[in-house]
Amino acid sequence: MEQLKIGITHGYTNGVGYEVILRTFENPTMLELCTPVLYGSPKLATYHRKAMELSTNFCTISRAEDAISEKLNIIECFQDEVKVEIGQKTEEAEKAMSCSRQAGLRDVSSHLVDALVAAPGDKLEPSELTILINDVMRVAVLTDLKPLKQVSALVTEENVTAKLRLFSQCLRRDFGITRPRIAVLSLNPEPGTEENEVLAPVVQKMEDEQICAIGPLSAEQLFGSHAFSYYDGILAMYYDQAAAPLQMTIQEYCVALQADAEHVKTFPLQDAGLSQAGKGEADLTSFCKAIYLAIDVCRNRARYDGARQNPLPKLFHDKREDNKRPSKAE
Amino acid sequence: MEQLKIGITHGYTNGVGYEVILRTFENPTMLELCTPVLYGSPKLATYHRKAMELSTNFCTISRAEDAISEKLNIIECFQDEVKVEIGQKTEEAEKAMSCSRQAGLRDVSSHLVDALVAAPGDKLEPSELTILINDVMRVAVLTDLKPLKQVSALVTEENVTAKLRLFSQCLRRDFGITRPRIAVLSLNPEPGTEENEVLAPVVQKMEDEQICAIGPLSAEQLFGSHAFSYYDGILAMYYDQAAAPLQMTIQEYCVALQADAEHVKTFPLQDAGLSQAGKGEADLTSFCKAIYLAIDVCRNRARYDGARQNPLPKLFHDKREDNKRPSKAE
Repeated sequence: MEQLKIGITHGYTNGVGYEVILRTFENPTMLELCTPVLYGSPKLATYHRKAMELSTNFCTISRAEDAISEKLNIIECFQDEVKVEIGQKTEEAEKAMSCSRQAGLRDVSSHLVDALVAAPGDKLEPSELTILINDVMRVAVLTDLKPLKQVSALVTEENVTAKLRLFSQCLRRDFGITRPRIAVLSLNPEPGTEENEVLAPVVQKMEDEQICAIGPLSAEQLFGSHAFSYYDGILAMYYDQAAAPLQMTIQEYCVALQADAEHVKTFPLQDAGLSQAGKGEADLTSFCKAIYLAIDVCRNRARYDGARQNPLPKLFHDKREDNKRPSKAE
Repeated sequence: MEQLKIGITHGYTNGVGYEVILRTFENPTMLELCTPVLYGSPKLATYHRKAMELSTNFCTISRAEDAISEKLNIIECFQDEVKVEIGQKTEEAEKAMSCSRQAGLRDVSSHLVDALVAAPGDKLEPSELTILINDVMRVAVLTDLKPLKQVSALVTEENVTAKLRLFSQCLRRDFGITRPRIAVLSLNPEPGTEENEVLAPVVQKMEDEQICAIGPLSAEQLFGSHAFSYYDGILAMYYDQAAAPLQMTIQEYCVALQADAEHVKTFPLQDAGLSQAGKGEADLTSFCKAIYLAIDVCRNRARYDGARQNPLPKLFHDKREDNKRPSKAE
């Protein structure tokens, strides 16, 4: 199997970003898994490496095409001097995070890297579908990071249908699940307008597209009964409905996948770590899992697309019932 | 210590309510802890006792004043015949739940019982302050079971201030915490209007009243970092923000306290259990914990109020700073 090129952003430069990246790629096994291309600054990497007494080697390249395998490659994405003020919020650090993010997003859009993984503190940009993930749950969010007062108006037939189609396709193509079962969460603590007029009818209609949606289910009951483990995916109506319960599982990590059909982007659900920065004690688990997830999704997509490249002509029999036909999405 | 009289509702009569009550008071230790007064039907109790082959004794009384200690006392609260249809949703069961609830609420209002505990499936009625509780968290809900689209408009200075005052007083009086620290959750996943214009200023102002409020804090971060354990209480903006993470803790139970200054009401956060009804396998933990909580709160209130019955006259010195004065609430 060809090694994948994984673009990496450096996150908030006064936080744990560089530490997490450098310590992760100090481990030779990680360099065997993928070829990392960090959008950042060799100067900042040197600074953090010295401050943390790390031994990670890296090389500076000017384009992702030149990346050397078994090395941490760094593309310098800004010329300005950036002052490191460990643990502080500064405009410079904010700007440095944004430069790295833009460079990474540009290269993943042009397919110069196979996937993009953001460092702690960087949530990239809103995408068509964000899925929060750990070992026990995959939760897609209908309304991303939208303010809560806008949420109810966005719970429409059109939006919920579109997200369920995307989510179902993502579970098939990105996770290799043949017939994904998706739980749809209620918006309200007790069934109300949105449940009766939007969610229940949409769930019903999904059957026609062979999308197995179940619900609407109350969040309290789904998480309380641990019934969440029966589902391949959960569609939450807003961010906190997904993130807070996910963070409460006994799993030690949470990551997010931004799954659009063309590009693979992941990030750890971990803040910039301003209070722990500079101590060399930041947890690497979520960042490593975000890398594994990016690799898995790329491989699953290649397998899925490969198997469908030269399809046999389909033979429909009129006697077959409509809802038994394979959907066009497959 | 005098034994407390605990009123009990029978919940949804086709669910696990009677089973949970009868099995709980089959245990003599529970009858030593309190004198239970069940608002229900001796016929229904006999039916469920027989169906479940239980040996719990009970006696029928007509008024709470006549309750006999070390017995399960039942007050018949409706004359109509109620057909039991295990596991089914029926209008009769709904009506029976409501009759029991009304009788219980009436007696606890008149102080004929010291507290009211509802059986699984019965959430009583909205009160001025509902707190969801297990061994690791106490979470008060700003907007109770209100539909999500109403929530944002209810995040006002007036409402948040009032709830923080009630919550703080409840933590002092009902839980015996001298200087409670309260985390205030954000409404939105990222700081927005409500955080900047309402929550942050209210938190700031609480200092003047010697109420220790901290926030607004993002739910994702508070639950993700397990920082929730640093706080004596958490104020959530809406029901699911409290209930879903609470249900995800490794604790095996969740209960709710409806704390108004005059009355103590609790219930287990457990549904009517229609699918498990009639099997004799329902979990008793949450219901028992709801009873313990009711007893603890009654005792803590008696202790708190007793200690403040004949206060010494306060001696203020003008040199003392204003914000160092004991608040009037104490």
